[in-house]
Amino acid sequence: MTLYLIGLGLNDHKDITVKGLEAIKKSDIIYLENYTSKLNTTQENLERFYGKKIILADRNLVEKKAESVILDEAKTKNVALLIIGDVFGATTHIDLLLRAKKDKITVEIIHNASIISAVGITGLEIYKFGRSISIPFNNINVTSPADRFKNNYENNLHTLFLLDIDPENDKYLTFSEAAEYLIRNGVDKNITAVGCAQIGSRNPLINVDDLKNFKSLKIDKFPQCLIVPAKKLHFIEEEALNLYR
Amino acid sequence: MTLYLIGLGLNDHKDITVKGLEAIKKSDIIYLENYTSKLNTTQENLERFYGKKIILADRNLVEKKAESVILDEAKTKNVALLIIGDVFGATTHIDLLLRAKKDKITVEIIHNASIISAVGITGLEIYKFGRSISIPFNNINVTSPADRFKNNYENNLHTLFLLDIDPENDKYLTFSEAAEYLIRNGVDKNITAVGCAQIGSRNPLINVDDLKNFKSLKIDKFPQCLIVPAKKLHFIEEEALNLYR
Repeated sequence: MTLYLIGLGLNDHKDITVKGLEAIKKSDIIYLENYTSKLNTTQENLERFYGKKIILADRNLVEKKAESVILDEAKTKNVALLIIGDVFGATTHIDLLLRAKKDKITVEIIHNASIISAVGITGLEIYKFGRSISIPFNNINVTSPADRFKNNYENNLHTLFLLDIDPENDKYLTFSEAAEYLIRNGVDKNITAVGCAQIGSRNPLINVDDLKNFKSLKIDKFPQCLIVPAKKLHFIEEEALNLYR
Repeated sequence: MTLYLIGLGLNDHKDITVKGLEAIKKSDIIYLENYTSKLNTTQENLERFYGKKIILADRNLVEKKAESVILDEAKTKNVALLIIGDVFGATTHIDLLLRAKKDKITVEIIHNASIISAVGITGLEIYKFGRSISIPFNNINVTSPADRFKNNYENNLHTLFLLDIDPENDKYLTFSEAAEYLIRNGVDKNITAVGCAQIGSRNPLINVDDLKNFKSLKIDKFPQCLIVPAKKLHFIEEEALNLYR
């Protein structure tokens, strides 16, 4: 029996790969990990398209009860765990892989698109991104995201900020809040930034402006991310950003 | 009429997304960009699975003749350009997007898996990777990859080395050659490295060893990449690497 870890990509039910869809068809039990990211579709749409029932897996199930539930079932049944984006965006999925391997459970991994490479759509070269930086909801006394950004920026690298989400409570950190956080922590309010929403959808929002102007820009499309490009850009990068300005 | 830029993912014909496959079915002309990466399947397999004829697009066609061929056709027909991995791994595809937008051609982008996030399978956290670094075939007098690596390493970040390829001549830089390059350029031969081949396939090779031991390790599976993990690791990262050692 096999545990399938299947990336769903970034937007809707049709972003799954053909290989992923075939694995779902072979699975007896299907979990959807729904707390580390957000799709722009509903559980019902996924179930209708897959022709299968989906069980929502919250943090407690994936992190605390994985051994007694998911891994135990995978010993006698084909089990699929659907993960938004690519499979290994979060440490918790690596942990699950390790525990499955210890239990001698066959694991098949089916990759998909991740925001980490999809931001290439902005025109910024993905090989010139430094480390990605997460900004949490509770960031009043948190300085490491700003410090890490300064390090990327000094090394002339782009920075992707991943913004905290809480899909169970329909709460998302916005790029406005991220801009405000950065300015509050000493980042120059006049540098250029790129605000993105729903990358991977047919009409992603990509907005290029001074960091300060994001403070008042409220967009009701999620998930969002914020990018601060490097100081020096390739002329094709410049040209691409001008397209979105 | 629409120009579809479609990521194929990392391994074979079934790594395309359902959305990507639907776009191919709607396309009148289909190009496969075959010089920036490599799939583990043949053109014939892709054609059989898609039920469509594919035209191989070499560097000359995509970079020099795009305007007169691909973009001109997209004014009156649906044209698909298939790209291995995710869509924007190379500057040339951004350039194509910019020129299409200038010509008011409708462009639809269909993302897919990229090596940049798929390396999460090694157990190393993808948010702790610094910039990715390319090593070219001709690297005798090239020091910037080694310098950039030292910068990542000093900042306690993982480094993914992307190794040069020339699929038209079936020539691939190996992780052995990359290890040799790094040692020749002053990188400590006793640090831990991770050699990977065919990530995204059902049986990817992931090998953890001292950098020096990669010099003599010849593996005939491609594409390959080399990773040097950060100095300090999370205990789950340690545990994952031990699994592959």
